[in-house]
Amino acid sequence: MSKAGCIFCKIANKEIPAKIVFENNQILAFEDVRPQAPTHILIIPKQHIEKISDLTESDTGMIGGLIVAAKDIANKQAVEKSGYRIVLNCNKDAGQEVFHIHLHLLGGRKFTWPPG
Amino acid sequence: MSKAGCIFCKIANKEIPAKIVFENNQILAFEDVRPQAPTHILIIPKQHIEKISDLTESDTGMIGGLIVAAKDIANKQAVEKSGYRIVLNCNKDAGQEVFHIHLHLLGGRKFTWPPG
Repeated sequence: MSKAGCIFCKIANKEIPAKIVFENNQILAFEDVRPQAPTHILIIPKQHIEKISDLTESDTGMIGGLIVAAKDIANKQAVEKSGYRIVLNCNKDAGQEVFHIHLHLLGGRKFTWPPG
Repeated sequence: MSKAGCIFCKIANKEIPAKIVFENNQILAFEDVRPQAPTHILIIPKQHIEKISDLTESDTGMIGGLIVAAKDIANKQAVEKSGYRIVLNCNKDAGQEVFHIHLHLLGGRKFTWPPG
Protein backbone atom coordinates (compact mmCIF):
# COMPACT_ATOMS: atom_id res chain seq x y z
CA MET A 1 0.00 0.00 0.00
CA SER A 2 2.67 2.54 1.08
CA LYS A 3 5.88 3.39 -0.74
CA ALA A 4 9.06 4.16 1.21
CA GLY A 5 10.17 7.75 0.76
CA CYS A 6 6.78 9.01 -0.48
CA ILE A 7 5.84 12.16 1.45
CA PHE A 8 2.09 11.60 0.98
CA CYS A 9 2.35 8.00 2.22
CA LYS A 10 4.14 9.40 5.28
CA ILE A 11 1.33 11.90 5.84
CA ALA A 12 -1.25 9.10 5.43
CA ASN A 13 0.69 7.01 7.96
CA LYS A 14 0.91 10.00 10.36
CA GLU A 15 4.70 9.96 10.20
CA ILE A 16 4.65 13.58 8.98
CA PRO A 17 2.12 16.05 10.46
CA ALA A 18 -0.48 17.79 8.29
CA LYS A 19 -3.62 19.83 8.91
CA ILE A 20 -6.07 17.02 8.28
CA VAL A 21 -9.62 18.06 7.37
CA PHE A 22 -11.14 14.67 6.48
CA GLU A 23 -10.24 11.00 6.75
CA ASN A 24 -11.86 7.64 6.10
CA ASN A 25 -10.49 4.16 5.38
CA GLN A 26 -9.50 4.96 1.79
CA ILE A 27 -9.00 8.74 1.71
CA LEU A 28 -7.10 11.49 3.53
CA ALA A 29 -7.62 15.24 3.00
CA PHE A 30 -5.32 17.95 4.35
CA GLU A 31 -4.41 21.60 3.77
CA ASP A 32 -1.88 22.34 1.03
CA VAL A 33 1.26 23.88 2.59
CA ARG A 34 1.52 26.29 -0.36
CA PRO A 35 -2.11 27.42 -0.69
CA GLN A 36 -3.14 29.07 -3.95
CA ALA A 37 -6.58 30.14 -2.68
CA PRO A 38 -8.26 30.75 0.72
CA THR A 39 -9.41 27.12 0.57
CA HIS A 40 -6.76 24.78 -0.87
CA ILE A 41 -7.10 21.16 0.22
CA LEU A 42 -5.27 18.10 -1.10
CA ILE A 43 -7.28 14.88 -1.20
CA ILE A 44 -5.34 11.64 -1.62
CA PRO A 45 -6.02 7.91 -1.71
CA LYS A 46 -4.20 6.21 1.19
CA GLN A 47 -3.06 3.60 -1.31
CA HIS A 48 0.10 4.60 -3.15
CA ILE A 49 -0.70 5.12 -6.85
CA GLU A 50 1.81 7.34 -8.62
CA LYS A 51 -0.32 9.11 -11.15
CA ILE A 52 -3.67 9.31 -12.93
CA SER A 53 -2.24 7.49 -15.95
CA ASP A 54 -1.63 4.45 -13.72
CA LEU A 55 -5.34 4.06 -12.87
CA THR A 56 -7.25 1.00 -14.04
CA GLU A 57 -10.98 0.27 -14.30
CA SER A 58 -10.82 -1.27 -10.81
CA ASP A 59 -9.86 2.15 -9.37
CA THR A 60 -13.08 3.80 -10.63
CA GLY A 61 -14.76 3.74 -7.21
CA MET A 62 -11.67 5.01 -5.40
CA ILE A 63 -11.10 7.94 -7.74
CA GLY A 64 -14.81 8.79 -7.79
CA GLY A 65 -14.63 8.78 -4.01
CA LEU A 66 -12.02 11.54 -4.13
CA ILE A 67 -14.42 13.76 -6.10
CA VAL A 68 -17.35 13.04 -3.77
CA ALA A 69 -15.07 13.79 -0.78
CA ALA A 70 -14.05 17.07 -2.45
CA LYS A 71 -17.71 18.02 -2.79
CA ASP A 72 -18.38 17.21 0.89
CA ILE A 73 -15.31 19.17 2.04
CA ALA A 74 -16.27 22.16 -0.15
CA ASN A 75 -19.64 22.11 1.60
CA LYS A 76 -18.04 22.04 5.06
CA GLN A 77 -15.64 24.85 4.10
CA ALA A 78 -18.62 26.94 2.91
CA VAL A 79 -17.35 27.41 -0.65
CA GLU A 80 -20.07 25.26 -2.21
CA LYS A 81 -22.34 28.13 -3.28
CA SER A 82 -19.62 30.61 -4.26
CA GLY A 83 -17.85 27.88 -6.22
CA TYR A 84 -14.67 25.83 -6.37
CA ARG A 85 -12.24 24.29 -8.82
CA ILE A 86 -10.98 20.69 -8.71
CA VAL A 87 -7.62 19.99 -10.39
CA LEU A 88 -5.70 16.77 -11.03
CA ASN A 89 -2.21 17.02 -12.54
CA CYS A 90 -0.60 14.10 -14.36
CA ASN A 91 3.09 14.13 -15.22
CA LYS A 92 5.53 16.89 -16.10
CA ASP A 93 3.60 19.26 -18.42
CA ALA A 94 0.90 19.58 -15.75
CA GLY A 95 3.46 20.28 -13.05
CA GLN A 96 2.86 17.13 -10.98
CA GLU A 97 5.46 17.33 -8.20
CA VAL A 98 4.52 14.56 -5.76
CA PHE A 99 4.09 11.21 -7.47
CA HIS A 100 1.22 9.98 -5.33
CA ILE A 101 -2.19 10.84 -6.82
CA HIS A 102 -3.68 13.98 -5.26
CA LEU A 103 -6.70 16.09 -6.07
CA HIS A 104 -6.54 19.86 -5.49
CA LEU A 105 -9.71 21.47 -4.15
CA LEU A 106 -9.49 25.26 -4.50
CA GLY A 107 -12.10 27.80 -3.40
CA GLY A 108 -12.72 31.13 -1.74
CA ARG A 109 -11.74 33.36 -4.66
CA LYS A 110 -12.54 33.78 -8.36
CA PHE A 111 -10.57 31.58 -10.77
CA THR A 112 -9.48 32.62 -14.26
CA TRP A 113 -9.48 30.73 -17.57
CA PRO A 114 -7.45 28.97 -18.87
CA PRO A 115 -6.64 26.99 -15.73
CA GLY A 116 -2.87 27.63 -15.87
CA MET B 1 -32.19 11.97 -17.95
CA SER B 2 -32.04 14.98 -20.34
CA LYS B 3 -33.02 18.55 -19.58
CA ALA B 4 -34.72 20.70 -22.20
CA GLY B 5 -32.55 23.60 -23.30
CA CYS B 6 -29.29 22.11 -22.00
CA ILE B 7 -26.65 22.34 -24.73
CA PHE B 8 -24.70 19.34 -23.42
CA CYS B 9 -27.85 17.19 -23.30
CA LYS B 10 -28.43 18.20 -26.93
CA ILE B 11 -24.88 17.14 -27.83
CA ALA B 12 -25.38 13.83 -25.96
CA ASN B 13 -28.64 13.31 -27.88
CA LYS B 14 -26.90 14.17 -31.20
CA GLU B 15 -29.22 17.14 -31.73
CA ILE B 16 -26.19 19.42 -31.92
CA PRO B 17 -23.00 18.26 -33.69
CA ALA B 18 -19.69 17.96 -31.88
CA LYS B 19 -16.32 16.40 -32.61
CA ILE B 20 -16.85 13.26 -30.56
CA VAL B 21 -13.71 11.42 -29.45
CA PHE B 22 -15.24 8.79 -27.14
CA GLU B 23 -18.66 7.44 -26.22
CA ASN B 24 -20.15 4.67 -24.12
CA ASN B 25 -23.52 4.16 -22.44
CA GLN B 26 -22.87 6.64 -19.65
CA ILE B 27 -20.24 9.02 -21.02
CA LEU B 28 -19.61 11.28 -24.03
CA ALA B 29 -16.33 13.05 -24.81
CA PHE B 30 -15.90 15.76 -27.43
CA GLU B 31 -13.53 18.57 -28.39
CA ASP B 32 -14.01 21.93 -26.62
CA VAL B 33 -15.03 24.58 -29.17
CA ARG B 34 -12.81 27.12 -27.39
CA PRO B 35 -9.66 25.04 -26.84
CA GLN B 36 -7.15 26.29 -24.26
CA ALA B 37 -4.47 23.75 -25.19
CA PRO B 38 -3.59 21.54 -28.21
CA THR B 39 -5.65 18.79 -26.54
CA HIS B 40 -8.81 20.11 -24.88
CA ILE B 41 -11.58 17.57 -24.49
CA LEU B 42 -14.81 17.84 -22.51
CA ILE B 43 -16.04 14.63 -20.89
CA ILE B 44 -19.65 14.58 -19.69
CA PRO B 45 -22.09 12.13 -18.14
CA LYS B 46 -25.03 11.59 -20.50
CA GLN B 47 -27.28 11.99 -17.49
CA HIS B 48 -28.10 15.63 -16.74
CA ILE B 49 -26.55 16.60 -13.40
CA GLU B 50 -26.05 20.34 -13.05
CA LYS B 51 -22.94 20.55 -10.99
CA ILE B 52 -20.40 18.72 -8.81
CA SER B 53 -22.13 19.96 -5.66
CA ASP B 54 -25.25 18.02 -6.72
CA LEU B 55 -23.43 14.66 -6.67
CA THR B 56 -24.42 12.01 -4.14
CA GLU B 57 -22.65 8.84 -2.96
CA SER B 58 -24.56 6.90 -5.61
CA ASP B 59 -22.78 8.90 -8.35
CA THR B 60 -19.31 7.74 -7.20
CA GLY B 61 -18.95 5.18 -10.00
CA MET B 62 -20.18 7.57 -12.68
CA ILE B 63 -17.85 10.41 -11.70
CA GLY B 64 -14.92 8.01 -11.28
CA GLY B 65 -15.73 6.77 -14.77
CA LEU B 66 -15.18 10.29 -16.14
CA ILE B 67 -11.65 10.32 -14.70
CA VAL B 68 -10.84 6.85 -16.05
CA ALA B 69 -12.20 7.91 -19.47
CA ALA B 70 -9.99 11.02 -19.32
CA LYS B 71 -6.96 8.83 -18.67
CA ASP B 72 -7.84 6.56 -21.62
CA ILE B 73 -8.42 9.53 -23.95
CA ALA B 74 -5.13 11.15 -22.85
CA ASN B 75 -3.43 7.91 -23.81
CA LYS B 76 -5.10 7.86 -27.24
CA GLN B 77 -4.22 11.52 -27.82
CA ALA B 78 -0.59 10.75 -26.94
CA VAL B 79 -0.35 13.28 -24.08
CA GLU B 80 -0.06 10.61 -21.38
CA LYS B 81 3.74 10.76 -21.03
CA SER B 82 4.17 14.51 -21.52
CA GLY B 83 1.33 15.14 -19.08
CA TYR B 84 -2.15 16.58 -18.77
CA ARG B 85 -4.39 18.54 -16.42
CA ILE B 86 -7.94 17.57 -15.45
CA VAL B 87 -10.23 20.38 -14.27
CA LEU B 88 -13.77 20.40 -12.87
CA ASN B 89 -15.44 23.76 -12.22
CA CYS B 90 -18.32 24.13 -9.81
CA ASN B 91 -20.41 27.30 -9.69
CA LYS B 92 -19.61 30.94 -10.33
CA ASP B 93 -16.18 31.53 -8.73
CA ALA B 94 -14.77 28.66 -10.79
CA GLY B 95 -16.31 30.04 -13.98
CA GLN B 96 -18.73 27.16 -14.62
CA GLU B 97 -20.68 28.26 -17.71
CA VAL B 98 -22.68 25.20 -18.76
CA PHE B 99 -24.68 23.73 -15.91
CA HIS B 100 -24.26 20.09 -16.91
CA ILE B 101 -21.23 18.45 -15.23
CA HIS B 102 -18.20 18.40 -17.51
CA LEU B 103 -14.57 17.48 -16.98
CA HIS B 104 -11.89 19.37 -18.90
CA LEU B 105 -8.95 17.30 -20.13
CA LEU B 106 -6.10 19.57 -21.22
CA GLY B 107 -2.75 18.52 -22.66
CA GLY B 108 -0.10 19.20 -25.28
CA ARG B 109 1.54 22.18 -23.59
CA LYS B 110 3.03 23.12 -20.23
CA PHE B 111 0.58 24.36 -17.58
CA THR B 112 1.34 26.99 -14.96
CA TRP B 113 0.49 27.19 -11.26
CA PRO B 114 -1.88 28.30 -9.81
CA PRO B 115 -4.47 26.76 -12.11
CA GLY B 116 -6.26 30.03 -12.89
